Amino acid sequence: MGEAVRILLTVAYDGTAYSGFAAQEGRQTIAGTLESVLSELTGEEIAITGASRTDAGVHAYGNLAVFDTTSVIPPERYARILNDRLPEDIRIMSSVRTEDDYDPRRTGRIKTYEYRIFTGDVIDPTKRLYTFRYPYALDVTRMNEAASFLVGEHDFTSFCNPDSQALTRVRKITGISVLRDGDNVTISVSGEGFLYNMVRIIAGTLMEVGRGLKCASDIGKILEAKDRREAGFTAPAQGLFLMGYL
Amino acid sequence: MGEAVRILLTVAYDGTAYSGFAAQEGRQTIAGTLESVLSELTGEEIAITGASRTDAGVHAYGNLAVFDTTSVIPPERYARILNDRLPEDIRIMSSVRTEDDYDPRRTGRIKTYEYRIFTGDVIDPTKRLYTFRYPYALDVTRMNEAASFLVGEHDFTSFCNPDSQALTRVRKITGISVLRDGDNVTISVSGEGFLYNMVRIIAGTLMEVGRGLKCASDIGKILEAKDRREAGFTAPAQGLFLMGYL
Repeated sequence: MGEAVRILLTVAYDGTAYSGFAAQEGRQTIAGTLESVLSELTGEEIAITGASRTDAGVHAYGNLAVFDTTSVIPPERYARILNDRLPEDIRIMSSVRTEDDYDPRRTGRIKTYEYRIFTGDVIDPTKRLYTFRYPYALDVTRMNEAASFLVGEHDFTSFCNPDSQALTRVRKITGISVLRDGDNVTISVSGEGFLYNMVRIIAGTLMEVGRGLKCASDIGKILEAKDRREAGFTAPAQGLFLMGYL
Repeated sequence: MGEAVRILLTVAYDGTAYSGFAAQEGRQTIAGTLESVLSELTGEEIAITGASRTDAGVHAYGNLAVFDTTSVIPPERYARILNDRLPEDIRIMSSVRTEDDYDPRRTGRIKTYEYRIFTGDVIDPTKRLYTFRYPYALDVTRMNEAASFLVGEHDFTSFCNPDSQALTRVRKITGISVLRDGDNVTISVSGEGFLYNMVRIIAGTLMEVGRGLKCASDIGKILEAKDRREAGFTAPAQGLFLMGYL
């Protein structure tokens, strides 16, 4: 046993088989899986704190997680050791020692999500778990115009699951872009923090704009209403990727 | 009920959950799944004949399959009707009527397989089911040189699973190419027909050449030996894709 150190992991996962990131009793979760492997490895009872509590079925390339340990394992070695013991749908991209009071939920760093849409008729079956099929012609120019109304600091109550426990619904979006590549449309959303289901409701609303069910200029009214029912549908989890932190 | 017609399907699938294409009693297969959905749809007992009996875990973008039916469903409608009823990991790309004696196993058409390799340390978890991780520096120039010895008509006994029931082990490869894109290496193999595990043994052998365990010039001796033990390992199923028929 050495002195207590805090280890920062960058974690990628296929969220398909998991009930989200945060540990929940009796459910398979990313944090629970990490805790179980780390506890067995170190002989300590390890608790994971994640930067983003991604929902069931959401994927990540660069979520952040920390844990404290007195193990003498060199911090950089955790990535390889964990990858040998974790299921293949969770991968540790890097492990480093961080400050003892580092809180991954309060980094002030910008994070980016991508929402991946397939607008064609028949989706590649090997992409079905990682893309949402929305078989409509999407006007990407209108979607970008609508997105521009969301950038900045706003009260996002209309874009938040009403079950949210957040004390304030004010958040700041630093950028949104909508890109098309053939039948694939990708929405990228960056900001310091997001409310419960916020990116998925933004994605659903932008899809409705792209399809012509809503106007780009409706976005201001939707924000003002502070009413979840004014925004579009909550896009399904499997299209959402937490890309990483700047 | 109408006259009996033969319908040709182009079928894509994620092979992860299936014991291969060919129907097997008590196992989940691509053909078995198609037969069950088609039999329920038409009220007839439908039998599927596939062009390629891909192994368990192998994927396809363009396998071919035929069945006979007296149903009055317009041939082009099967694609959409089946996609509404099939699990999402099997998709029908097209359906057309074909000649009553059309045998998809004897089309004389060239088919192409791809074998997908990731040579890096940590694989994207959303690609793990569709790529084989082989974490070694691969010399693609040497792999292409080795591949050139396989092109043409040869006795491929050394590149065939000894359990094969094939009457002759002579096959003709019309082309092989090995391409690198960063940490990804893709082997494409085209030919009229392949023996049991032939593409996977070719892929394994070329990987051993790329890594320096075998020389490109060994390929001639391996072919001449007509002995499975002379070739390289059988690359795992999940990296293999049947791309389609020319």
